[in-house]
Amino acid sequence: MKTLIRNAYVLTMDEKGTIFENGCVLVEGEEIVYAGEEKGLSDSRADREIDADRNIVMPGFINAHTHLPMTIFKGYGEGLPLKRWLEEKIWPAEAKLNDEMVYWTSMLGLIEMARTGTTSFLDMYMHYDSVFDAVDKGGYRCMFSRAVLDVDGNEEVRLKEAVEAYEKYHGKGNVEVMMSAHAEYTCSPSILEKITEAAEKYDTGIHIHISESRQEHMDSIGRHGLTPIQFFDKLGVTKRPIAAAHCVHVNEKDMEIIAEKNISVLSCPQSNLKLGSGISPIKHMLDMGINVAVGTDGSSSNNNLDMIEETMLISLLQRGVLNDAEAIGNMQALKLATAGGAKALGWSEKLGSLKSGYFADLIMIDTSGVEFVPRNDLVSGIINSGCGRDVCMTMIGGKIVYESDSVSFADEDEVKRKVQEFADKICS
Amino acid sequence: MKTLIRNAYVLTMDEKGTIFENGCVLVEGEEIVYAGEEKGLSDSRADREIDADRNIVMPGFINAHTHLPMTIFKGYGEGLPLKRWLEEKIWPAEAKLNDEMVYWTSMLGLIEMARTGTTSFLDMYMHYDSVFDAVDKGGYRCMFSRAVLDVDGNEEVRLKEAVEAYEKYHGKGNVEVMMSAHAEYTCSPSILEKITEAAEKYDTGIHIHISESRQEHMDSIGRHGLTPIQFFDKLGVTKRPIAAAHCVHVNEKDMEIIAEKNISVLSCPQSNLKLGSGISPIKHMLDMGINVAVGTDGSSSNNNLDMIEETMLISLLQRGVLNDAEAIGNMQALKLATAGGAKALGWSEKLGSLKSGYFADLIMIDTSGVEFVPRNDLVSGIINSGCGRDVCMTMIGGKIVYESDSVSFADEDEVKRKVQEFADKICS
Repeated sequence: MKTLIRNAYVLTMDEKGTIFENGCVLVEGEEIVYAGEEKGLSDSRADREIDADRNIVMPGFINAHTHLPMTIFKGYGEGLPLKRWLEEKIWPAEAKLNDEMVYWTSMLGLIEMARTGTTSFLDMYMHYDSVFDAVDKGGYRCMFSRAVLDVDGNEEVRLKEAVEAYEKYHGKGNVEVMMSAHAEYTCSPSILEKITEAAEKYDTGIHIHISESRQEHMDSIGRHGLTPIQFFDKLGVTKRPIAAAHCVHVNEKDMEIIAEKNISVLSCPQSNLKLGSGISPIKHMLDMGINVAVGTDGSSSNNNLDMIEETMLISLLQRGVLNDAEAIGNMQALKLATAGGAKALGWSEKLGSLKSGYFADLIMIDTSGVEFVPRNDLVSGIINSGCGRDVCMTMIGGKIVYESDSVSFADEDEVKRKVQEFADKICS
Repeated sequence: MKTLIRNAYVLTMDEKGTIFENGCVLVEGEEIVYAGEEKGLSDSRADREIDADRNIVMPGFINAHTHLPMTIFKGYGEGLPLKRWLEEKIWPAEAKLNDEMVYWTSMLGLIEMARTGTTSFLDMYMHYDSVFDAVDKGGYRCMFSRAVLDVDGNEEVRLKEAVEAYEKYHGKGNVEVMMSAHAEYTCSPSILEKITEAAEKYDTGIHIHISESRQEHMDSIGRHGLTPIQFFDKLGVTKRPIAAAHCVHVNEKDMEIIAEKNISVLSCPQSNLKLGSGISPIKHMLDMGINVAVGTDGSSSNNNLDMIEETMLISLLQRGVLNDAEAIGNMQALKLATAGGAKALGWSEKLGSLKSGYFADLIMIDTSGVEFVPRNDLVSGIINSGCGRDVCMTMIGGKIVYESDSVSFADEDEVKRKVQEFADKICS
């Protein structure tokens, strides 16, 4: 099966930021076989031809930190700070979640991702069988991690599940599995050592929440005399590749550790604002050579899965906080949300830009709306004028999962109805 | 002509934040005659009945600071800080704008406003005949101000035009006119005195950019030994009501002056981030009792006119900067973007909330999309999950200007084509 997308403004998001103004992308099976100027394509035969009508074609967004099933908690516990929000609202409601609910709320999240141009993501949650079923049905590319914590003394079950999740699902469909430690404040040194051992055994990275709130950061110093990242480093957790969500309150020494070790920062600017956590020093970390990826966090603290909005914030917040309109440019922000995510997930060799041999994970952005007129700067159009709603086609591994205002993998009305019914039961 | 909107979730945005969950709004002529629970409506006869289908009905947004014709400069000069952006890009391009261009770019801006739920706005620009023609054709409620400055020694023409604009257009259609002083760095004491005199003569407020960037703020201290607001206060400008755009770099004494005098702050969070100006201390000003309204600024530094995005940022930025998830709640943010704007423009007696006797300036928000599922919190749905694209109907003074994906007052394709042609001429 060959698909040719022609007459497109192609943002490759490759190392040089190459743009093909009269571009096309030829897809065969799950891979791109050509991305370039249309005149350079030698053989344009294809089973399906899509006229992009001068719209933008670019890599799909990689949501580098989310909790897909939390879509059901959107708007629940509004206005509370992180700790109270978790303890008073989210954790009690999560205790009522069952596998069926998780399947349907995951499906709702995937629909929103498809509609807003996200083609792959790094997830951390539980009920992994249900998450896998939804992700696999959607054909989504997902790095999954079962959150491990032992603050309640219940370590063995979760660690066992994390390992089971790896053994059952790693490499199945478009899914891979990595280990996860929930956070410093929920994990003992003993469980962290076991998680690290498992990550070594299965050769995976470890997905961790790090220094999201000031309280978490300061409590860690109080407990260990060390910041969370220093604590993980001392325990040897950082000998594995780390996908470090948030890193809002990191200090200079923390950032040096992050820069030295194989650690990617997964920044979730909107969630960090919404929960009153703060603004991560992304620009400074980029200047230090740290790989930064972008995530929405769970829809419950965002409250959507729109990676274009997140990309806008990654750029705007640094400009505002540093009083520097040139702090993070639009192309750089887009790169963090695509290639930065691919690197954080260990997928740089196959994902994050449009080039021959890479997975055909790509999106088309409709530029016909008033927001894109006039076309003084199309990249600014995507980020600053537009939003995820402008995405008009989403393809994962050569398969179209969204086009013509409809997703391929679910009955949207059924999904909405089911999730509303479940929310009425557990969020009240 | 009577229009009844029923079966709605009505956010009145009145002083108490009243919500009617099974609400309706009855409109007669240009005014609301009933807003309340449907069961409380005594006489439901109407010429037109609209079934809101459980969607949200609320007051239209009031964009308290914008430069409508700058829509043509969207994305032009991306990545430059305020001063260079103005001097190298915007001002040279503005010199090439003519009346015809201003008419069409204003029309484009109005289309975007209608589509995203803005029903009235405070504008500052030039070419006021063309702006009026577009605004009047759109049926928009607008407070217009001709920007006056004399930094180039050319004071008389602009002041004359500002007075002419008042005499020609104040009270015509839905348009009112106020005086304007562009900013401290572009106005001499002499012109400021004349502007104040004109405002006294015509009994209008004065619309001014104040302490937008750190440079502007510090330069004023260097020139006068006074911050911009202190300088205006010393000159007696503040004896008139002031619509003070931005106020990002105000100090404690500045805020005391603002709180004491009849001054509203028009906060434009996205533009302030984008140009690297900073984040305004809105929460602190609200705690001091200052009236805060919300604006997009010109589309050229935003880059859209979506007041829902702006409302989200007003809330999120204060939460993030102050490490306080409760700093500004969603209802309070919505209030600033509606009632706050009405107060800033002197229209509180007729605008900013849905109640009997008020202008029927209202919008309907479609809550059928995935972003609004589940409905754990509808107000959070508007601001945090949704965006301006969710607006499905916009009414100004009882007249529907947008519904069924179409505006009533313009041929969108013609407007887009014209503005693109003009942009190709002057933005290069």
